[in-house]
Amino acid sequence: MSVDRLLDPSSIAVVGASSDDRKIGYAAMENASLFDGPVYPVNPNAAELFGQRCYDSVTEIDERVDLALLCVPRGLLPEIVRQCGRADVGGAVVYAAGFSEASPEGATLEADVVSAADGYDLTLLGPNTSGFLNTDRGVYASFVSKVEEIPTGPVSIVAQSGGINHVLTFLAGNERVGVRKAIGLGNAAATGFESIIRHLEDDAGTEAIVLHVEGFDDGRAVLETCRSIETPVAMYKVGQEDVSAFAASHTGAMIGDYELYQAACAQYGVPLVDSCQALIDAGEVLATSPEPRGTNVALVTGQAGPGIAITDRLRAAGARLPELPAATRETVESCLPGITYTANPIDTGQPPDVDSYESILTAVAESETVDVLLVYQLYEERIDYPVETMQRLRAETGVPIVFGTNGPSDDVDAGIDRFRAGGIPVFRSPERAADAVGVLVEYARTNAPTPGRSSAGDFE
Amino acid sequence: MSVDRLLDPSSIAVVGASSDDRKIGYAAMENASLFDGPVYPVNPNAAELFGQRCYDSVTEIDERVDLALLCVPRGLLPEIVRQCGRADVGGAVVYAAGFSEASPEGATLEADVVSAADGYDLTLLGPNTSGFLNTDRGVYASFVSKVEEIPTGPVSIVAQSGGINHVLTFLAGNERVGVRKAIGLGNAAATGFESIIRHLEDDAGTEAIVLHVEGFDDGRAVLETCRSIETPVAMYKVGQEDVSAFAASHTGAMIGDYELYQAACAQYGVPLVDSCQALIDAGEVLATSPEPRGTNVALVTGQAGPGIAITDRLRAAGARLPELPAATRETVESCLPGITYTANPIDTGQPPDVDSYESILTAVAESETVDVLLVYQLYEERIDYPVETMQRLRAETGVPIVFGTNGPSDDVDAGIDRFRAGGIPVFRSPERAADAVGVLVEYARTNAPTPGRSSAGDFE
Repeated sequence: MSVDRLLDPSSIAVVGASSDDRKIGYAAMENASLFDGPVYPVNPNAAELFGQRCYDSVTEIDERVDLALLCVPRGLLPEIVRQCGRADVGGAVVYAAGFSEASPEGATLEADVVSAADGYDLTLLGPNTSGFLNTDRGVYASFVSKVEEIPTGPVSIVAQSGGINHVLTFLAGNERVGVRKAIGLGNAAATGFESIIRHLEDDAGTEAIVLHVEGFDDGRAVLETCRSIETPVAMYKVGQEDVSAFAASHTGAMIGDYELYQAACAQYGVPLVDSCQALIDAGEVLATSPEPRGTNVALVTGQAGPGIAITDRLRAAGARLPELPAATRETVESCLPGITYTANPIDTGQPPDVDSYESILTAVAESETVDVLLVYQLYEERIDYPVETMQRLRAETGVPIVFGTNGPSDDVDAGIDRFRAGGIPVFRSPERAADAVGVLVEYARTNAPTPGRSSAGDFE
Repeated sequence: MSVDRLLDPSSIAVVGASSDDRKIGYAAMENASLFDGPVYPVNPNAAELFGQRCYDSVTEIDERVDLALLCVPRGLLPEIVRQCGRADVGGAVVYAAGFSEASPEGATLEADVVSAADGYDLTLLGPNTSGFLNTDRGVYASFVSKVEEIPTGPVSIVAQSGGINHVLTFLAGNERVGVRKAIGLGNAAATGFESIIRHLEDDAGTEAIVLHVEGFDDGRAVLETCRSIETPVAMYKVGQEDVSAFAASHTGAMIGDYELYQAACAQYGVPLVDSCQALIDAGEVLATSPEPRGTNVALVTGQAGPGIAITDRLRAAGARLPELPAATRETVESCLPGITYTANPIDTGQPPDVDSYESILTAVAESETVDVLLVYQLYEERIDYPVETMQRLRAETGVPIVFGTNGPSDDVDAGIDRFRAGGIPVFRSPERAADAVGVLVEYARTNAPTPGRSSAGDFE
């Protein structure tokens, strides 16, 4: 069943809209009202809500309703869902909890809700979800405060948990990465990962998809969907089950489940990360980078200590740090006489001037052995950040370029805005920059058709 | 040898001060000039620098010089160090690189620099370091830009790498945690971890010490120093050597070295973390929390998904999540009829009102089985953050309380400022909050004299 009308609606009904600000029907109506299109409150106990005519039932609305937000108690849901079906609603978000996640009776009720949609072209999201966002269209089908502050961006999110969905959206918002669509599946009674991933593949603004997974019924099918699409996908698998097993048994078998996910993700080309922040970072780097041609990374660092921390993590992630060719090293040495280490990583120390820094970065990015370039630098007032250089080099070489930095808040924030505006992924610590490059390397390892750049065509 | 005059100076000389802004002697003089006390530029080629009389040599300064910042080429250092000794300078920072880290000749020169201080009461920091900060005293003995923007705070840093020292200071500054002292050891030719850790133990403003370690010559002695002091210590060990071994051999022996650190840190009660951000988070939670009485954690979460992610990481960190007593659960259930899960974690959902939320938090914090309370919540405009409640509960119970949240930037930033002002550690993601509690649990596991709270005295 298509999720298009659910996620890209032209009209919204809020069933169970309320004037009581302690209720989901209030918060959902408040957020839905931000939509620049028809929004219909539905509540048989009110004549008017939020300054609008209130309908007794969704079946009373004369205009076509694409999306219904169901803010009613769970016991009413089978009947409300049938009404949505009769009204030719395209999709419905079921916020209520207390279904299969709670009890056997809840599971029965959940099956009733799903079967109430039988025979209609109605897509159900949930139950037990906080809904979804479509920032590009201004659809805030969630009851969480201030979700409208999250900027639009190139990453879309599919989270098993509605709560984690919002953790991820806010992290992406705070990091100024932005979100295109963000969907919390909740119990996924009728709509799971696959149909949403396929929808996002056709979503013009989605450049990368990130998944939060607690556990799959059919993980292999989801991963096959991920592999079958062009859009890159990364996953955060919460270690729930293996840790439960750990608590129960303290045996070596405890890591079996997580290791299965690791092996499967490696096989299907889905980089696996271990936190919400790392997942947003993975989305950013995958969404904004050209496809890497291989796993050879060059690191240019202004400080040796961060360079060592980055190198360690890159190697652990399976990156190769090949020695740079003699010609590249000669150029670097001519810019920085007496430099201590030019093989790779290149430790520039504080570059003497902006021109030398640009020459070094150019020589390295243009080196034939380099598939990904990572540059780390503490903020330096005299040198600032090489934003334009990195944009130019990426355009000229097609090599993914990732930047990492730390420094005074205001300067780093201003720099990050400039990098983001230029489409260069940027991270606020050595380890986060390294892990993002690790994601690119993992993606290249399984998805790049050739082992290295020199023999590869243009994958952008 | 004491590091007190080095780190708490009353006067500073900058040897090799320069008017050329591409030189370390310029940047170091600029930062040193922020000191609210005498700062003497020394350079035989200038009569005046930064509007001050410039001395030909440190021996010409009539007043007592506690700290000298040596911004001269490495070849001059033996003689300059001797001059500092003759002038009764207390401590000297050696910024230059190109010593034992670079070549055998450099190692010889490094030995010459160290022996030049023989017979004097002169403490050398470095070489190959970016120096140190003492934010409380306004000493910015570093050549890095804008370090004066880093606020003072309860965490002190000892980093093997001068670069990582500044990564850590900026992370702490940006997170509004603040730094007391931050020292980059560099090659640690004469001053290593032990003497600085002992100094920080007596530093009234230092409530926690965090260490960045690439490799120890005598790790056991350093860890014994950490165990012997009252101030809690956490460590970030860069996996350098095991990853080098990995790259070289691909054998199972690769993780041996890091596992040795893990075992030793566990034995000596030094929580071990794996990134710069995690180290600052560890410093914050250790600096601001009363000592936990045991490893029993209660988790109150507004959203189930983050709660699951947190629970997993807590269990992996060795925390126990005991079922809460029946009386506690009854109180919680009376506040939230129909709540799905009250055993531990407690999933409150969106609390109906501020009073219920406060009642729940109070019942849990006062439960005798709880050694640490972790509260996670997405920002909710209607509920805001329970800052005053958490302050009150921590004061009344002596139980460490940690908060985690995500939400719109401005509201989260404002909330974090309030938590910080109230001394409550607060983290911007479920995983970071969980990892911080994991640090407390690890600290309690090895340092708490009793296994649980009920049988413990007052450790605050």
